[in-house]
Amino acid sequence: MALFDEAAAAVPIPRVPRPIVIADYGAGTGYNSVLPLCSAISVLRKRTQPEHSILVTHTDAPDNDFTALFRTLSHDPDSYLKRDDASFASAVGRSYYKQILPSNSVNLAWSAWALHWLARVPMPVSDHLLAAYTRDPAVRAAYARQAAFDWHEFVAFRGRELCPGGRMVVMTMGVDEDGQLGFGPLVAAISETLEELVARDVITADEYAGMSIPIVGRTAKDFESPFAPSGTFEKLSITGMDLFDGEDRFFKQYRSDGKADAFGAQWAAFVRAALSPTLAGQLTPNRPADAFSHALEAGVAARLAAAPAGVRIPLALVVIEKKQPRD
Amino acid sequence: MALFDEAAAAVPIPRVPRPIVIADYGAGTGYNSVLPLCSAISVLRKRTQPEHSILVTHTDAPDNDFTALFRTLSHDPDSYLKRDDASFASAVGRSYYKQILPSNSVNLAWSAWALHWLARVPMPVSDHLLAAYTRDPAVRAAYARQAAFDWHEFVAFRGRELCPGGRMVVMTMGVDEDGQLGFGPLVAAISETLEELVARDVITADEYAGMSIPIVGRTAKDFESPFAPSGTFEKLSITGMDLFDGEDRFFKQYRSDGKADAFGAQWAAFVRAALSPTLAGQLTPNRPADAFSHALEAGVAARLAAAPAGVRIPLALVVIEKKQPRD
Repeated sequence: MALFDEAAAAVPIPRVPRPIVIADYGAGTGYNSVLPLCSAISVLRKRTQPEHSILVTHTDAPDNDFTALFRTLSHDPDSYLKRDDASFASAVGRSYYKQILPSNSVNLAWSAWALHWLARVPMPVSDHLLAAYTRDPAVRAAYARQAAFDWHEFVAFRGRELCPGGRMVVMTMGVDEDGQLGFGPLVAAISETLEELVARDVITADEYAGMSIPIVGRTAKDFESPFAPSGTFEKLSITGMDLFDGEDRFFKQYRSDGKADAFGAQWAAFVRAALSPTLAGQLTPNRPADAFSHALEAGVAARLAAAPAGVRIPLALVVIEKKQPRD
Repeated sequence: MALFDEAAAAVPIPRVPRPIVIADYGAGTGYNSVLPLCSAISVLRKRTQPEHSILVTHTDAPDNDFTALFRTLSHDPDSYLKRDDASFASAVGRSYYKQILPSNSVNLAWSAWALHWLARVPMPVSDHLLAAYTRDPAVRAAYARQAAFDWHEFVAFRGRELCPGGRMVVMTMGVDEDGQLGFGPLVAAISETLEELVARDVITADEYAGMSIPIVGRTAKDFESPFAPSGTFEKLSITGMDLFDGEDRFFKQYRSDGKADAFGAQWAAFVRAALSPTLAGQLTPNRPADAFSHALEAGVAARLAAAPAGVRIPLALVVIEKKQPRD
């Protein structure tokens, strides 16, 4: 988060009474933005008067649970609404693959755990849950094209929305040395569980074959691509990039307390919340998604608990800045 | 809506690139604001450049269906998002009985069909669904106090949010010559249906007794109260008021086509959507709300179809303006 605080310290801010505008792209229920936003707002607050309004706009797809988002923002003790009396929250329920905020209106932007989801599934992945692990070069190419297109579009539209001098910090999935997006033990546990569910007739082979998780990790070169060769794109440039491994907090806890069941249960709960809805989308309409999700969670939990291993989480933080007129 | 268009024509607007900000307080799913906002935005658009951003913020309680709101805004052919390329939508899921938007940030505001709902039920109404029809003077007094308090608070917080020179147009329920809030045939049909449901053991007498609809109509004097005696309050003043009867479109259609069943069904669908959730809140937890709502709708439809009569809809439009520094 240090990069986001640095951005908050550096961006030009408007004068009172014009509000300082922060955008949070792909906010979900706010879980991944409450803490970084609270921190950035405290940095901004030190730069201006206590009554200077700060307006945060959280965006996500229209079917996002905005009620849960507003409840988090109103009640979480770490929410900026609890910590800063002159902060305000709003939401936009539209895809960020177009312009969804006024031109030149955003002073500071954040996006976490969102851009790894592709805007659409470019083609079915017949031999694996993840295109990253397929042996089919046509699938790999289609996914790479979609990933490049999505990043290009996302950056281009944010370029319109950012104020001159405004900065955006994106946290999304990177890749490991082998170009893989990590999460190996987790992906294996999901695949094995789904195969078991087919064998047990909980789901059909056709349903399993239709399931894929359209997420991608990106390399430094992928992030830089829209800016090549000049280094600028739509008045934007990359001013910082950090490629690192996220900590597997569940494994850290397991190494401290030895509770293998808790390790499995925590990652399985993550799978249920983050991935199960996507997989359940391939079930035939009469099959209850709840039972499937429960069986998936139980299978993943048991497999991970049986052989606890650290989950590699390659991440990328990218800082993008919009040129100021005087530059 | 003429008053809202007039407000759009008169309010000071910021210069590019600062967006023109419109607030829609108590938006629900957007049903009552799509047309007036589209009209007001076309008025504003004629006053500025095609690329000048107009940002609309729709507010409602956190449990509002914001997904439905954003779907309406994205897909309704009359939505400003469809009609104006430089318009943008956002939402706030917080009660408007506090400040929820930045100070001095709103150029134009709209609120329709929202302020007649009280912020809280001040006390049970034992002898009627509506406090307006009670014979208990203590109930009447408690409801009147709450209605006055709500209006005072609503206006005070909007006064902080409006820009100098900004205007707000509120459409809410008024009263008829007898001080009643109208909707007579509808209220009678609901009461009779609920009594029948008690007799048929669909609901219990206790559940019925607990049901009330905490809505109020207001008089001109009620609207003016926070501004008395000077005519100004928090730099605000009432610059227009229109008390009139809304048209019963369902009855108008019935008089043209003679279809009594359709007349009953249309009002009953309104009851189901607008009031049934409030009434169902008094059901014991194990009673299915769906069955209750269906029975209520059927009973109301049958009663209104058996004796079609025009529904009186006393309404009020109030225009409030915030003083400009040069005034």
